[in-house]
Amino acid sequence: MVRYRLWVDSEAHASAAAAAIAREQTVEVPHGVGGAELQARLLGRVGDVADAGEGRFDVSISYPLEVVGTQLPQLVNVAYGNVSLMNGVRVVDVELPAAALEALPGPRLGIEGLRALVGAGQGRPLVSVAIKPVGRTAAELAELAVTFVRAGVDVIKDDHGLVDQSAAPFAERVQRVGAAVHEENARLGRRCAYFPNVTGPVDGLARRLEVARAADCPGVVLCPGLLGLDVMRSVASGSGPVAIMAHPSHAQTAPGRREGIAPDVLLGVLYRVAGADAVVYVNALGRFSWPVQVCERINERLRAPLGALRPSFPVPAGGVRAEDAGRWLERYGADTMLLIGGSLLGQDDLLGATRRVVEAAHAVDPAWRGVAEGEAER
Amino acid sequence: MVRYRLWVDSEAHASAAAAAIAREQTVEVPHGVGGAELQARLLGRVGDVADAGEGRFDVSISYPLEVVGTQLPQLVNVAYGNVSLMNGVRVVDVELPAAALEALPGPRLGIEGLRALVGAGQGRPLVSVAIKPVGRTAAELAELAVTFVRAGVDVIKDDHGLVDQSAAPFAERVQRVGAAVHEENARLGRRCAYFPNVTGPVDGLARRLEVARAADCPGVVLCPGLLGLDVMRSVASGSGPVAIMAHPSHAQTAPGRREGIAPDVLLGVLYRVAGADAVVYVNALGRFSWPVQVCERINERLRAPLGALRPSFPVPAGGVRAEDAGRWLERYGADTMLLIGGSLLGQDDLLGATRRVVEAAHAVDPAWRGVAEGEAER
Repeated sequence: MVRYRLWVDSEAHASAAAAAIAREQTVEVPHGVGGAELQARLLGRVGDVADAGEGRFDVSISYPLEVVGTQLPQLVNVAYGNVSLMNGVRVVDVELPAAALEALPGPRLGIEGLRALVGAGQGRPLVSVAIKPVGRTAAELAELAVTFVRAGVDVIKDDHGLVDQSAAPFAERVQRVGAAVHEENARLGRRCAYFPNVTGPVDGLARRLEVARAADCPGVVLCPGLLGLDVMRSVASGSGPVAIMAHPSHAQTAPGRREGIAPDVLLGVLYRVAGADAVVYVNALGRFSWPVQVCERINERLRAPLGALRPSFPVPAGGVRAEDAGRWLERYGADTMLLIGGSLLGQDDLLGATRRVVEAAHAVDPAWRGVAEGEAER
Repeated sequence: MVRYRLWVDSEAHASAAAAAIAREQTVEVPHGVGGAELQARLLGRVGDVADAGEGRFDVSISYPLEVVGTQLPQLVNVAYGNVSLMNGVRVVDVELPAAALEALPGPRLGIEGLRALVGAGQGRPLVSVAIKPVGRTAAELAELAVTFVRAGVDVIKDDHGLVDQSAAPFAERVQRVGAAVHEENARLGRRCAYFPNVTGPVDGLARRLEVARAADCPGVVLCPGLLGLDVMRSVASGSGPVAIMAHPSHAQTAPGRREGIAPDVLLGVLYRVAGADAVVYVNALGRFSWPVQVCERINERLRAPLGALRPSFPVPAGGVRAEDAGRWLERYGADTMLLIGGSLLGQDDLLGATRRVVEAAHAVDPAWRGVAEGEAER
């Protein structure tokens, strides 16, 4: 079942548009072609049409399993394929068939598995940081990483803009940063994880995953918007490093648009079923202007029961100020991984500032699961 | 160089937004982090800011080759990565670095190569048709294909919604339709090509390409929006069937939006550099409401000189009526591949109706290259 929000001027037009979408996304031929029995069997079925006010109508369409199947590219094709070329049609909810939820990998580790990976017992939130900017050498990035291990962060990730540039080529960076993190972990008895960014040409992905695995990296950063959602699914189904942190670069979603897949559906449902253990999104009050209600709706989606799939860590990011870490964690609860990048890197006392963020995370009551205030904006 | 259209309320705000984008898409850290020299070297450079009227401003940003490199995922990441999560920022032009144009495959056949493939001499337009709907058996689809060969069409493509459903599983469909087309070609001395749809799970893609190659299919249909643009690039760089027809399902682009990559840039430039020999788009006056000026702009982009890359066939589709075939080909010119699906399949006399479309294509003066009327809408 897919729920669409339509921008049309009457309920009659909404019903007509819904019928056109149900045809476009399935048989895609005029009435009668292929025979009445075939069309009755395979056309999408329009359900409720609800007036959402301000010239918006919500319609739900159920698609036959025979058309959709259980594979991710076709699920997306049916939910938002050709209609992604129409204006005024937005996906605001998706309920996947049980067969698809069984066939898709979902997170390999999920929230509890990631906590165990970094040795964070007692259900506390995690702290992750980004090493950057592009242009720093592998040695400089490794030095940064060592400071972050000392400060007690849980996950150090490559900035998603670090790929294979000359200052810090992929293999050299992964080896140097990976080795530096392992050494400092061993020295201090820590289990900080380093997740290199494996986004890049798809035909080199297996090799990059192997480099990460060989450097004992327990997870990777990957941008499904750039590589394809099903590429993430194939990594989650494969034999590389176990954890995936999905980054939303080129995800092409934001609150308030008339088109696209709503952020909570894309990042909160599709990224999770495709295997992300942690999903980065742009937090409220940072460099992007996503309302906090949308952020909380993503949090909810990533943590909610969904077939037998594990929950994924929501990762608010995108300009979170270090001094606000405690405030955000109090709001979002213990099942959160906070990601702070630029705000820390700009501090004179990097070690001290990072330690304060870590302390804020350790201070959160593990029983506190955050609160969703009011109805989420989509 | 990327040109963005920004929806802001003043030129000062446009300049500030452009500076923020130039930072977001490159170093992604506050002023000074990494050192002044690094930032001076690697920050995007804001060029002209032009008032485009109605609260819109166009800004161009040049990104250093050291950051961008020549690989497609990073090109898209820098052009429209994190900013794809902001409202009111649209990509309206992209000029790729010469090094990227050299490194990317572009079409293997292009317009002249595809004409040669199907034996269409003298520079005439091509006619393609879709076999569908989902639910028809492989035998029924093969029977349809035979009628299309008899009518003289150049390319028979799978509907993009035909994947691996039970009525016509992928391998059985490709073998039966492929064999039927070859037999009828041999009987009539024709060179009609069958392009099966290989869109599906990425870890089965190599196998599906092999099935297509084994069935002597000279090309395939592929949806970069579903699989990832770089997956298409890897297919174009590989050893499978030679021709790629790119289908825009889930391309998430349309005229008139404030976000996204404008259709002519995505379908006319990025799909071409990523290796599409033919690019399907939704034509004006069909089931979608794209202005004809946008269609002509896509045509122009696909045919225009671009480094040493071959031109690609524009493929207007999406509800083109069979009786309008001649009219569209007169307008768009000989370097066009018309795609007609549902409109033909709904006709009582399928053979006769298809023959009339083919005759319309053969009647187009090969010297006629179409005309672009006025400034293209983006």
